[in-house]
Amino acid sequence: MPRAIRNDKRERLIQAADKLIYEQTFHTTTLADIAKLADVPLGNVYYYFKTKEAIMDAVLHKRMTEWRNLFQQWEQIPDIKQRLTALLQHNNAQSETLARFGCVIGSLCQELGKQGGILANAASKLMADILKWVETQFREMGKGERSSQLATYYLAAIQGMNLLTLTFKEPQYMERQSQSLQEWLATV
Amino acid sequence: MPRAIRNDKRERLIQAADKLIYEQTFHTTTLADIAKLADVPLGNVYYYFKTKEAIMDAVLHKRMTEWRNLFQQWEQIPDIKQRLTALLQHNNAQSETLARFGCVIGSLCQELGKQGGILANAASKLMADILKWVETQFREMGKGERSSQLATYYLAAIQGMNLLTLTFKEPQYMERQSQSLQEWLATV
Repeated sequence: MPRAIRNDKRERLIQAADKLIYEQTFHTTTLADIAKLADVPLGNVYYYFKTKEAIMDAVLHKRMTEWRNLFQQWEQIPDIKQRLTALLQHNNAQSETLARFGCVIGSLCQELGKQGGILANAASKLMADILKWVETQFREMGKGERSSQLATYYLAAIQGMNLLTLTFKEPQYMERQSQSLQEWLATV
Repeated sequence: MPRAIRNDKRERLIQAADKLIYEQTFHTTTLADIAKLADVPLGNVYYYFKTKEAIMDAVLHKRMTEWRNLFQQWEQIPDIKQRLTALLQHNNAQSETLARFGCVIGSLCQELGKQGGILANAASKLMADILKWVETQFREMGKGERSSQLATYYLAAIQGMNLLTLTFKEPQYMERQSQSLQEWLATV
C-alpha cells in the first residue's frame, strides 16, 4: 500500500475517534464505530491501532500539538492580557458545540479521571500544559508567586463555564461568565 | 414480602447505584454491578426498577431532597456570605473523593449532557436548583440584576475547581481556589 494512502487511513481513524469520543464519551465509543465513520474496514484498523486506547492516545497527541501551535501564535500578541483573552475567545468560538457536548479536554479529564491510568494521565497532561501556559503569562505580567493561583482561578472559571453551558444548553452562561472574566482580568 | 424489607432492598439498590455511578460513570455501570453491591438477586431488581435509567432517576431524586435540606439548613445562617461559604465548605469537605472521582453532580452533567434526554434534564435540574439558590442569596444581599451573573460566576468557579482537583489529583488546587473565591466573595 503506498505510504500516502496508509497515512491517510491512519489520519482518518484519528479524526473519527476524536469526533466520536467527544460527542459520545470514550466508554460508549467502540472501535467498530470509529472504523465505520473513518470508512476503514474493521479488520484493517488493527494494522494501525491495536486498541481504542491507542487511538485515544494518538488523538491526545494531535490535540497537544494543536495547543502548542496556538500558544506560539498567541505569544506573538504584545499585550499579555490580550493573550489570555485570546484563550477565552478561542474557547468561546466553539460555543455551539460546547453547549452540545461540553469542553473537549474538560469532559475527557472528567470521564477518564475517575478510573485513572495512562490515558487519564495523558488527558491530565494536556490540561496541565494549558494551566502552565496561563501561569507563564501571569509571571510575565510580573505576578510572581501569585501566578499559579491566578492561573488556577482563570482556567477553573473557564472550565466551570463550559460545564454550565453544557448543563443548561444555553450560550447565555458563556456570555455572562466571559463578561465577568474579562472584568476580573482587567483588575488583575 | 413485608413492606420494611421491600423498602430496604429498594434503598440498598439506590445507594449502590449512587456509589457505582459516581465512581465508575453511568455508562460503565451495569444493573448486574448494582444488584451485586446491593446484595439483591439480579432477577429481583426488576421488581423495583425496570432499567438502570429508572434507578438513576431515583438517585437524582434522593440527591435533590438532600440538597433541599442543606439549603434549609444554610438559610438559618444570618450572614448571607456565610451561607455561600457554607456551600463551598460542604463541597470541599469531600476533597478526597473529589480528587478521586470528581464532583457528583458535575460529572453526571458532563457525562449525561452529551447525549441529552430525560436523565440529562434531571441532572441539569439539580444543578439549576443549586444555581437558583446561590442567585437567591445574592438577591437577598441586594445585588439585584447582577445576582444571576454573580451566581453563575460562583458556581462555575466551584465546578471548575472540582474538575481541576480531579484532573490533577491534588487537593492544593482546591485550597488555592477556595482562597481566591473567599477573597472574591469578600469584595462582592
